[in-house]
Amino acid sequence: MVALDTMKEQTPDTSKSRLRLWINLLRASRFIEAEIRDRLRREFDVTLPRFDVMAALYRQPDGMMMSQLSRYLMVSNGNVTGIVDRLVKDGLVLRSQRDGDRRTWIICLTINGTKSFETMAAAHEQWVNELLQDFTGEEADELQLTLARLSSDWERKE
Amino acid sequence: MVALDTMKEQTPDTSKSRLRLWINLLRASRFIEAEIRDRLRREFDVTLPRFDVMAALYRQPDGMMMSQLSRYLMVSNGNVTGIVDRLVKDGLVLRSQRDGDRRTWIICLTINGTKSFETMAAAHEQWVNELLQDFTGEEADELQLTLARLSSDWERKE
Repeated sequence: MVALDTMKEQTPDTSKSRLRLWINLLRASRFIEAEIRDRLRREFDVTLPRFDVMAALYRQPDGMMMSQLSRYLMVSNGNVTGIVDRLVKDGLVLRSQRDGDRRTWIICLTINGTKSFETMAAAHEQWVNELLQDFTGEEADELQLTLARLSSDWERKE
Repeated sequence: MVALDTMKEQTPDTSKSRLRLWINLLRASRFIEAEIRDRLRREFDVTLPRFDVMAALYRQPDGMMMSQLSRYLMVSNGNVTGIVDRLVKDGLVLRSQRDGDRRTWIICLTINGTKSFETMAAAHEQWVNELLQDFTGEEADELQLTLARLSSDWERKE
């Protein structure tokens, strides 16, 4: 009889503490994500995956390969392909072949794509600033470093 | 020109710190969730939403209304209904009418459902314990309390 945080007797306290941490991390993350998803749709008529793809491309002005983009976003290639197709159609993303390699496509934001993303990103930053207002800058930096350390540990193990 | 954490000039540092925190919180949460989703499917042939529904019911031995369950899980009623239908068919969940109210259904785990969940929950706790091994018990408790405080702030505002 050991389940979530309802029983404490049979496993070490540390394991229960980590489980409670995970449950609260997940709840916080889902809440903020749902809030951002709603606001992106309401204010910019944009889905969260589309925003995520544009954010990834914005960080790489020289462009990304589809496989890099998928890995970065941790979603299936199929989904990313559909999103990129629509972005290309809307004139926000450019798809070009890499020199000397006709099989490899590089994608990047167009000037319009960059402008469009910057407008959304400014609003996004304000929303996050408001949602996480209980954290001081110092607390946020400290926690962020811990989480970044975890992520890089996991990525090394993959 | 303000986007994610690539530019620092035009907004206060605190807002950038909170944005970096959110990006790392989301990455950590997605990574752990994907890992748990994989392991649940591989070891128990169970989807994560199904596990989540069973976890919610396990915490409420007296049963829950469908609307409570949906709110708790922050997913659409439609999804939860489908999952509960399958759990009832598999003999893991019982659906019964509340006394004096023929329109309200109460659902709870059966004895088999409880046993099945406890087996999975014990494995789940071990996985989380391993994935978050970089946090000491004290660090986990401290961070968990901060996140729980945030969540209750948001819930009050809803």
